[in-house]
Amino acid sequence: MTDDFYMQLAINEAWKHQLLTYPNPAVGCVVLDKNGKILSISSHKKAGFMHAEPSAILQALCTISSEFASSFLREYQMSFELKSQNITQTLENENLDAKFCYDFILKNHSNLLKGASAYVTLEPCSHHGKTPPCASLIANLGFKRVVIANYDENEIASGGVKILKEAGVEVVCGVLSKLGSELLEPFMAWQSGNFSFFKIALSANGVATGGVISNQASRTHMHALRSVCDMLVISGNTVRIDRPTLDTRLTKDGKSPDILIYSRSKNFDKSIPLFGVKDRSVSISDSLKSAFDRGLVMFEGAQGLLNALPNEVKWVLVYQSSTLKNAQNLISERTFEPLHSVKFDDDTATWYRIR
Amino acid sequence: MTDDFYMQLAINEAWKHQLLTYPNPAVGCVVLDKNGKILSISSHKKAGFMHAEPSAILQALCTISSEFASSFLREYQMSFELKSQNITQTLENENLDAKFCYDFILKNHSNLLKGASAYVTLEPCSHHGKTPPCASLIANLGFKRVVIANYDENEIASGGVKILKEAGVEVVCGVLSKLGSELLEPFMAWQSGNFSFFKIALSANGVATGGVISNQASRTHMHALRSVCDMLVISGNTVRIDRPTLDTRLTKDGKSPDILIYSRSKNFDKSIPLFGVKDRSVSISDSLKSAFDRGLVMFEGAQGLLNALPNEVKWVLVYQSSTLKNAQNLISERTFEPLHSVKFDDDTATWYRIR
Repeated sequence: MTDDFYMQLAINEAWKHQLLTYPNPAVGCVVLDKNGKILSISSHKKAGFMHAEPSAILQALCTISSEFASSFLREYQMSFELKSQNITQTLENENLDAKFCYDFILKNHSNLLKGASAYVTLEPCSHHGKTPPCASLIANLGFKRVVIANYDENEIASGGVKILKEAGVEVVCGVLSKLGSELLEPFMAWQSGNFSFFKIALSANGVATGGVISNQASRTHMHALRSVCDMLVISGNTVRIDRPTLDTRLTKDGKSPDILIYSRSKNFDKSIPLFGVKDRSVSISDSLKSAFDRGLVMFEGAQGLLNALPNEVKWVLVYQSSTLKNAQNLISERTFEPLHSVKFDDDTATWYRIR
Repeated sequence: MTDDFYMQLAINEAWKHQLLTYPNPAVGCVVLDKNGKILSISSHKKAGFMHAEPSAILQALCTISSEFASSFLREYQMSFELKSQNITQTLENENLDAKFCYDFILKNHSNLLKGASAYVTLEPCSHHGKTPPCASLIANLGFKRVVIANYDENEIASGGVKILKEAGVEVVCGVLSKLGSELLEPFMAWQSGNFSFFKIALSANGVATGGVISNQASRTHMHALRSVCDMLVISGNTVRIDRPTLDTRLTKDGKSPDILIYSRSKNFDKSIPLFGVKDRSVSISDSLKSAFDRGLVMFEGAQGLLNALPNEVKWVLVYQSSTLKNAQNLISERTFEPLHSVKFDDDTATWYRIR
């Protein structure tokens, strides 16, 4: 198979955690052994969690060697209070201590990944944060080849390719770079101050109104998105009609974002649940300026807000259900350009660029 | 990676040619070398074309050995008039002579696939048609392991697993069998007489009316579907309003299907283009009975026909564009259960089971 094929797998994996990694970029990584067999497909899942590369490397080592996997699980359980007993669940779901994993990999890899290849959607980092650089880890493990979609333009993190090349690793850059750039768009935007997107749920026949439209999996994802957002913007009309809570109850340890109610009138019934959510500030304004001062902002609403969106709002996330609703559809003059779709059970969530 | 991962790749590949293989089943196949590296992903593309397994095997051998690839291309060009000069194009696009390919593989494989694995969505066939059985080919090439989603229940073709096991091949059956069965539903239905489906194009906000909605890639696919259908059913109203041609001009060598106009009145302006298409019979009836006597039938229409569909129509194919249209949406009381989606540039084609 071609480099494009493996990079597409890495890109698809990264999109599953798009925005959820804020303020970090969404990054995916695929590791192949020296014979070209896929060992792992992983991604960066959340700020504070492992980067995509060590996550995929840890998974790859556990795939190759059950001995490595069981000794990792045993030592991790000894060092930390870990509920999961199963290595697959542990690798997928837990916020593993990055430093511990990095050190464990370096100490126990036994050259199992000598001659391996990695496909990474973004240049591996070169900076010492909680762990040493990802690029050094890859070089230390004896990887033969690293394929990258895009260079990292962040001054602190860039330089990974240099580290890899100096260690004798073959580096190919620019594979599916257009798709890789689309994946990075939010990251580039919030690094320059702000990334704003509009979220809406639609039935299969385009209805946005009349009660809950998206399924449980979509709504859980949406609560996880709310939880990483700095601010949520909603129109005064929607607040008055829907009387929403706008919290993150469907996620574990969710943080409810600040709210900006976009409205001329400042008069609201304060018994509307959103005003009662803890640790949240609610502001009411007929200007959106304060929203674009925040890093990651989600606009929630329906037809009215969609058609009033300023140009600062770059993307639309549509949760589209597979059911038809007997009601009037959403109408808009805006143009949607599809970027990527993810399935949530029978719903399809599609990210669009909006024009 | 798990068996599920590779089987999903095979299933996805097969769906790209769903119905287009009529009267054969849609089948996908993935070949891995003895080290677990993916060599090829292929499918049965059309009746008369190679089965999925020899197609994937030929592609795999060309991937492993450029010598094999160039000698195949050379000998093929000598034996047949072949326009394509490029091996990739040849494998993907040409209706290669199955007998020639089968014999060439058997004569020239040089044990390159010894120890390989295959993932096939349907039990490899055991019958001698234009070529000897696929199961024998796999066994003769020294495959170590074959993973299958579903047994073939067709009496003539079944028995492939027996051939494989007798040759010492490890066979695993039932991987992703539910998804594999969904893929086979049309095949099972037309083997029992008839498979009927409804096709519609919708804008992102559910509009089915007002001129062309789907893009060129979707319409080309739809013409290819028409070309394999025995009959096309359309409502009298649509014929009067749209004055359609209902031909297959966007496909090469397309055959325009017979038409049943579903209408009480037999009165139609015979200058409507569909009546002028060559080699086609057009009938007008207020009964759909004659449609369900045919093997593969496509219903084309909009809201009226959708809501009047009898239970014999099992699936709906929705070509959904990414653009919003400023018009009233399609309304229906029917329930759609999504089965699989395929991208056509910015359009998404989704197959649904309809209830």
